Amino acid sequence: MTVAVSNAKRIGARAVSCASTGNTSASLAAYAALAGIPAIVLVPSGQIALGKLAQTLAYGARTLMVRGDFDACLRLAREAAEKLGVYLVNSINPFRIAGQTTIVFDLLQQLDWRSPDWIVVPAGNLGNTAAFGVALRQARENGLIESSPRLAAVQAEGAAPFSRSFKSGFARREVVHAETVATAIKIGDPASYERGVRAIRENNGVVLDVSDSEILEAKAVIDASGVGCEPASAASVAGVRRLVRDGIIRKGERVVAVLTGHILKDPGILIDYHKDGKQSLANPPLEIDASIEAVERVLDFGATGQRR
Amino acid sequence: MTVAVSNAKRIGARAVSCASTGNTSASLAAYAALAGIPAIVLVPSGQIALGKLAQTLAYGARTLMVRGDFDACLRLAREAAEKLGVYLVNSINPFRIAGQTTIVFDLLQQLDWRSPDWIVVPAGNLGNTAAFGVALRQARENGLIESSPRLAAVQAEGAAPFSRSFKSGFARREVVHAETVATAIKIGDPASYERGVRAIRENNGVVLDVSDSEILEAKAVIDASGVGCEPASAASVAGVRRLVRDGIIRKGERVVAVLTGHILKDPGILIDYHKDGKQSLANPPLEIDASIEAVERVLDFGATGQRR
Repeated sequence: MTVAVSNAKRIGARAVSCASTGNTSASLAAYAALAGIPAIVLVPSGQIALGKLAQTLAYGARTLMVRGDFDACLRLAREAAEKLGVYLVNSINPFRIAGQTTIVFDLLQQLDWRSPDWIVVPAGNLGNTAAFGVALRQARENGLIESSPRLAAVQAEGAAPFSRSFKSGFARREVVHAETVATAIKIGDPASYERGVRAIRENNGVVLDVSDSEILEAKAVIDASGVGCEPASAASVAGVRRLVRDGIIRKGERVVAVLTGHILKDPGILIDYHKDGKQSLANPPLEIDASIEAVERVLDFGATGQRR
Repeated sequence: MTVAVSNAKRIGARAVSCASTGNTSASLAAYAALAGIPAIVLVPSGQIALGKLAQTLAYGARTLMVRGDFDACLRLAREAAEKLGVYLVNSINPFRIAGQTTIVFDLLQQLDWRSPDWIVVPAGNLGNTAAFGVALRQARENGLIESSPRLAAVQAEGAAPFSRSFKSGFARREVVHAETVATAIKIGDPASYERGVRAIRENNGVVLDVSDSEILEAKAVIDASGVGCEPASAASVAGVRRLVRDGIIRKGERVVAVLTGHILKDPGILIDYHKDGKQSLANPPLEIDASIEAVERVLDFGATGQRR
């Protein structure tokens, strides 16, 4: 994002812009503020997680809540870029894809350039999937790795156009109306479709989709480990579980699952999950009086230990 | 926190515990999860920011929402530590203070060991104030810096027992009922009072308090710069403004204001600040139809430019 915004400034753009489910808008707003260039973001009204909206407003982006879904926002952002001369930083911008390739180089470096057997990534607009394909191609061509990992792109069941296309061997491009709790991948018509297809084909890849409840359960496990992530990120771990169960990821294989968003991006869904203790891995808070007897009554170490 | 939790494990504590306005509980919950030891946290019911509660639950801490304020939680946590054999990690624990001293060493290193004229820090329970005093003493005694910066501790007007004590030359320790939007420093009876007094005395320090509206305005400025922070953190910058206005910080002096919490810790207060455009620096979102005409109508570049 920092290179894209710098370039906008270099060419004298009057403003930078993006369509977003919230993460890109928060990032753009911050970098635009640092660079001193106005930012205009288009987000689907009422469908953006609380933390992401808070950041976008706080960093000073002009925030347009569009009555429509992400796909409508992206169409509009492209049209606005063409007609109104603002600089678009969605992943159709090559500087964004270049930035996203660094995720792969970083993880390969952390693994001492010994390629894992799998890289698993949440898939919505397919910017990351496309960038991972580019990075793995570059890593092979430059001799940084000997063999490529297989790539797995994981979508949410209710927002799975890429997964559907994969089932037909990418015979046709699908478009759906997207519905999922994982707002960051709630996208029905992914912008980087063609490059996503190339990434999957070049890396012996698979595309699958997982249900919202699989996503939330995987998220609860990631959270309880002390790491944490936003719902869309947990799709990668939910995908790993599914691929292991189906025998596609095999015993002993080394797997990297990428988490794409911070736990605090979507606090609302977390509180909802935990508050009443109805979900399988819920950790509900307990209200007590300010007395040592009340603390003693609820401190059942056995039960606490059991949960962990 | 990592050292404190490791120590709890080393000595075989059955659990780790803290009283918290939310940041300590989130941190403890994460490190306890990583260490595989149960965590029990006491937070004031209904007075903890959304992001902090979300993290605490998600990382798996047993979360007791106490009907009382932070000060009641801390009394209870101390009593529970004594009677129930859990390991307390509040800043009365020396490992916590040791950890907090690294903030000062880090900032001095970033300044090439040329001490600033001022270090300004938000002040609630006085753990940071106390730790900064320890760090500056160590830095002087070890010859890392030649002269000490002056220390300024900034409280919220509605939670200013330390500021009140300072006005009487620390003749008496004050206790108040705390009320402020800055939940992380909403503390009426600071645990590290004595060590806080020593830190201020040894570093030619001052203690002051600022209003909630000064805090929120300073926060809006910090946020719009692209950095961002939680409300309590902004007390430090609000304090700098006040000290400059009062001629205590003078022109040309080098000032470090410490931000103690991430912008996403308290998204609710941010949305409230920006949503209706009534606050002085508000950046309200605008709902529009999904048409290019609607985008064109609202894109008043002059006005957007003006805001920045």
